[in-house]
Amino acid sequence: MLKAAIIGASGYTGAELAGLIHAHPNLTLAGLYVSEGSLDAHKPFASLYPRWRGVIDAPVLPLDDDALSRIYADADLVLLATAHEVSHDLAPGFLAKGLPVFDLSGAFRVPGDDFYQRFYGFTHQFGDWLSKAAYGLAEWNQDAIKQAQLIAVPGCYPTASLTALKPLQTAGLMAAGRKPIISAVSGVTGAGRKASLATSFCEVSFKPYGVLNHRHQPEISHHLSNQVVFQPHLGNFNRGILATIYVELNDDVTDEQIASAYHSAYDGQKIVRITDQWPQINDVAGTPFCDLHWARDGNQLIVVSAIDNLLKGAASQAIQCINIHQGFSPLAGLVQE
Amino acid sequence: MLKAAIIGASGYTGAELAGLIHAHPNLTLAGLYVSEGSLDAHKPFASLYPRWRGVIDAPVLPLDDDALSRIYADADLVLLATAHEVSHDLAPGFLAKGLPVFDLSGAFRVPGDDFYQRFYGFTHQFGDWLSKAAYGLAEWNQDAIKQAQLIAVPGCYPTASLTALKPLQTAGLMAAGRKPIISAVSGVTGAGRKASLATSFCEVSFKPYGVLNHRHQPEISHHLSNQVVFQPHLGNFNRGILATIYVELNDDVTDEQIASAYHSAYDGQKIVRITDQWPQINDVAGTPFCDLHWARDGNQLIVVSAIDNLLKGAASQAIQCINIHQGFSPLAGLVQE
Amino acid sequence: MLKAAIIGASGYTGAELAGLIHAHPNLTLAGLYVSEGSLDAHKPFASLYPRWRGVIDAPVLPLDDDALSRIYADADLVLLATAHEVSHDLAPGFLAKGLPVFDLSGAFRVPGDDFYQRFYGFTHQFGDWLSKAAYGLAEWNQDAIKQAQLIAVPGCYPTASLTALKPLQTAGLMAAGRKPIISAVSGVTGAGRKASLATSFCEVSFKPYGVLNHRHQPEISHHLSNQVVFQPHLGNFNRGILATIYVELNDDVTDEQIASAYHSAYDGQKIVRITDQWPQINDVAGTPFCDLHWARDGNQLIVVSAIDNLLKGAASQAIQCINIHQGFSPLAGLVQE
Amino acid sequence: MLKAAIIGASGYTGAELAGLIHAHPNLTLAGLYVSEGSLDAHKPFASLYPRWRGVIDAPVLPLDDDALSRIYADADLVLLATAHEVSHDLAPGFLAKGLPVFDLSGAFRVPGDDFYQRFYGFTHQFGDWLSKAAYGLAEWNQDAIKQAQLIAVPGCYPTASLTALKPLQTAGLMAAGRKPIISAVSGVTGAGRKASLATSFCEVSFKPYGVLNHRHQPEISHHLSNQVVFQPHLGNFNRGILATIYVELNDDVTDEQIASAYHSAYDGQKIVRITDQWPQINDVAGTPFCDLHWARDGNQLIVVSAIDNLLKGAASQAIQCINIHQGFSPLAGLVQE
Repeated sequence: MLKAAIIGASGYTGAELAGLIHAHPNLTLAGLYVSEGSLDAHKPFASLYPRWRGVIDAPVLPLDDDALSRIYADADLVLLATAHEVSHDLAPGFLAKGLPVFDLSGAFRVPGDDFYQRFYGFTHQFGDWLSKAAYGLAEWNQDAIKQAQLIAVPGCYPTASLTALKPLQTAGLMAAGRKPIISAVSGVTGAGRKASLATSFCEVSFKPYGVLNHRHQPEISHHLSNQVVFQPHLGNFNRGILATIYVELNDDVTDEQIASAYHSAYDGQKIVRITDQWPQINDVAGTPFCDLHWARDGNQLIVVSAIDNLLKGAASQAIQCINIHQGFSPLAGLVQE
Repeated sequence: MLKAAIIGASGYTGAELAGLIHAHPNLTLAGLYVSEGSLDAHKPFASLYPRWRGVIDAPVLPLDDDALSRIYADADLVLLATAHEVSHDLAPGFLAKGLPVFDLSGAFRVPGDDFYQRFYGFTHQFGDWLSKAAYGLAEWNQDAIKQAQLIAVPGCYPTASLTALKPLQTAGLMAAGRKPIISAVSGVTGAGRKASLATSFCEVSFKPYGVLNHRHQPEISHHLSNQVVFQPHLGNFNRGILATIYVELNDDVTDEQIASAYHSAYDGQKIVRITDQWPQINDVAGTPFCDLHWARDGNQLIVVSAIDNLLKGAASQAIQCINIHQGFSPLAGLVQE
Repeated sequence: MLKAAIIGASGYTGAELAGLIHAHPNLTLAGLYVSEGSLDAHKPFASLYPRWRGVIDAPVLPLDDDALSRIYADADLVLLATAHEVSHDLAPGFLAKGLPVFDLSGAFRVPGDDFYQRFYGFTHQFGDWLSKAAYGLAEWNQDAIKQAQLIAVPGCYPTASLTALKPLQTAGLMAAGRKPIISAVSGVTGAGRKASLATSFCEVSFKPYGVLNHRHQPEISHHLSNQVVFQPHLGNFNRGILATIYVELNDDVTDEQIASAYHSAYDGQKIVRITDQWPQINDVAGTPFCDLHWARDGNQLIVVSAIDNLLKGAASQAIQCINIHQGFSPLAGLVQE
Repeated sequence: MLKAAIIGASGYTGAELAGLIHAHPNLTLAGLYVSEGSLDAHKPFASLYPRWRGVIDAPVLPLDDDALSRIYADADLVLLATAHEVSHDLAPGFLAKGLPVFDLSGAFRVPGDDFYQRFYGFTHQFGDWLSKAAYGLAEWNQDAIKQAQLIAVPGCYPTASLTALKPLQTAGLMAAGRKPIISAVSGVTGAGRKASLATSFCEVSFKPYGVLNHRHQPEISHHLSNQVVFQPHLGNFNRGILATIYVELNDDVTDEQIASAYHSAYDGQKIVRITDQWPQINDVAGTPFCDLHWARDGNQLIVVSAIDNLLKGAASQAIQCINIHQGFSPLAGLVQE
């Protein structure tokens, strides 16, 4: 059993990680941590997430010097479910001690000079780690994930988008110079667990946000090697992302070529399910799966993908990365076989 | 047209008042106000409540000295949709200027020495106004409402509860010494419009609160002249209150006596509807009505009432009070006849 | 007061029409009807829609020969909130009696030989009326609406889409040969009021449907005079449509040209609101408005429109058409001025 | 591994059973069955419940003679997630073959001459089995469950109610002659998976039902050995039951006696959690737990219990019963320890 420390265990993603690691046959919890000044410090995890009462009874502890010492001494790997800048600041310390780090923030996902300044509002200090980090899109980067010490687990929208688009890009089926349009909707957990009028029960309403300036647009474009138009929306549900993607195909692309692109990418990869019905949020919420389906009319292709934003879009993909990195069974802790 | 000033126009109840007064045939808006330090001060009302864009385009203004002067000079009546202590502090000033005040807070609802200290956490300074205020339960206190200068509009739970119980109490049908049990559920707007983890979209969950210590228990008991057990719950919906009330009847009470108690109380009072189906939230949400239905088995009576907490439980009942106070048609601005 | 008969009063749209006509200063209800075999026949309207108890107490009556005679004799106009084929069959009879007919179904919206066969599954028998019908997009076809005897009130998705796109098309700003992509979501009332597993509370889930074959695609394309890609989704809310529309602009289109296209189309037309925030469902649900906002990045324009599918997408647009047709104030019965 | 056949696998409860057995360390699926005439017969289970795609890929098969022969030959136990009358008719056949039967319907829960005629509308034909059946309230009837061949798994409301009330009854703390009042709310899955207007997305609204005549009232009263008032409500959520129970205590009952009653009943029984916060639906939905909390004011006690209606109220309690019956670890397949 490897021991995993979770930093940022009081957020929705951290809590999902705690549950997944608790249930994982090869992993055990080596501490649940929050930032040193957090109001949640020293509270029992189950007082924050009462559904885990009697199952995960550990407290969430402040990440002070003692905590760091314990992690350095005891943990086999570290999961960062922290804010982008916090991850940016913390990761190098753990890496320097030789610990593998699985970062669920955006701090190490996109190389490039001014990306962090422009889209995250801070100057990246660790260009070296940024360039060495593996992008943890589990079905695509297995070799890199296996070898890297730092894994940047992809964002939720990029996971849904890239899983749908990379097979087409790889197979060269998309019309050159035509940007795919990704019209996507996320559940409210995507905004994190903090009090805000925008996410209050009586105010949530289906709506677009981040129009033409969302930070996931360059993340998707970079890892697809193709510019995209990306438009997120807030949906009236707790968990899940559904992306409806409009792609212009090259002339003369056949149905078989499309099917072949998807099947050669995902056959045998149990987490991505090529389905015979259109994906819907309820089919993937609470699961580690990404569902995919498509249709075409002439050169117009519509691909729809759906994931749970907190799982395949965050915590369960982190577990996939650990499984790959450690050589565990790919579905360990994720799907009962 | 009488001119009505609304203090506290940025909250859910204040916004409902604004809409009702805008549409009222005998009333017009004489200003929308918020507390002097409010972050919303000077914003257009429609930027806070965009559904009113193009309809109510006035700004919400800070209640500074100029504002008070304008209200004293121009307004014919004042509506307080403010926090309890704010209403307590503001009402006497408007009253001293001779303005009728319709207070939607709890500040003038329950006479008695230690009630405010115990249930609201402040010492009441205006015992005189407290004793002169009319309790604005529109179907029951019309004479008092007509004559008073200060009307304390009842709380949402008390309105639903008292409408269901007063006919039984008045007719002497309830078993002496047996407390009715009021098991009620409110929509999330009942918690007001402020960011809070408890009312965030992903956290709202059906649950009890205020167990055996809610301030509406003494309000109901006082105005019923009978002690009650009152238990509120938070429901997964925006607006509405449904109260299921368990009453032990005196021996030998007939079905006819029960029906007679309700019909003599409400026949001809169009806002209370004695229905032939069990009330449900959807039938009253967005309306000024209170729906009532009952059944009995031996001495066990179950009465169910339903209202919109922001309307019959607040804003539309305030309009009923104004209609009574001013001698307008009872349904003016509430129901298209 | 003109007398309006509603056929199909038991459905969601018919019920909205009943409420709007009840409140309209120039209209009065001349009967609520359902098909002759309907299980709802002879029930009080308020037993189907209990929120209207005490307000609209008329029964819904079967549309038998007596009913037709009454309508011919008494009604001044007829609203059809019926299934497409029922409207197709009924409209000519009313028209032959000289009654103006406002049809909310799809039966008279799109001229063309095989459209009905292909998209509605029946052969259209009344090509003459089809060609004479005015398409009731209220802000665009006022002259035609005024003069026609038969008004085909647009579908909900076409209203949201055309309101957003017609200004661009009219101003010649869209790149030739590039189809706008309309990615839209509708509330569950869009599926009508009938028991179905797909619309049951526990099964509704955000999802796409009608992919690349929805009947509203040709309706939009025809009335825009430009082919579009149209993709509807089911949303987890009761009422409302939000359309996010991706448009490729011509080279050299300026921001001012875009603004001018919208303002020249809608300034002074109070039902379409050009907003300074992104539209959201909650701002328009329960209102007759269409909210519009846009942004652009280079040649990529994103326009978002939002309406209530049962109101601007059906019943309140029918009232707009009646107001135009009869020369009433454009906002009569819709917005309190 | 014991082999479990599920009859009624297309309903919500049957689907939960399938998932729990799939994940259970000591159980394996021996067939998913539906009634012989079901439209779902021969469909892949995952086409009915797509979230299980790639995990449970078996078809649901019609329960014809071949199916019965296979079950007799291969299965080690049978789970009936069928309608009450279907369970009534099927159970004796499996029992006659010596198979243990876990029936999740109401067919064998309450002995007595006219109970089934009065509350279920059929005459019970198998009084002998009815009297021999163990009532599968897992924390209370372990010896009976261990020894019986037929286990009648309790209803969802009775589980929530009895778990809260049996400790008080057993300890003799409830005032004689005073009925506890159970005011409870259930999620919409409680109505089963079938199309109905009452459970359609746009119609579901918080409301009472089954007033003073619900069949769970006698089930609770019988197994509590004390009459109760039971009032169910429909809630606006998918899964879960929360029961708020009003109990009149004997004079002189101490706080310690109440605590002792609950702790002696449930300490060490991990599925029932005595919590330090008020239970809420979200804490138990998707879990096998029952959460309990109480408060008192004089002789008035309020106890609140919450469960997932499909799990502790049905499927996971059936697994608890199997674990007890077979001598498996009590939490096997339910809680990761």
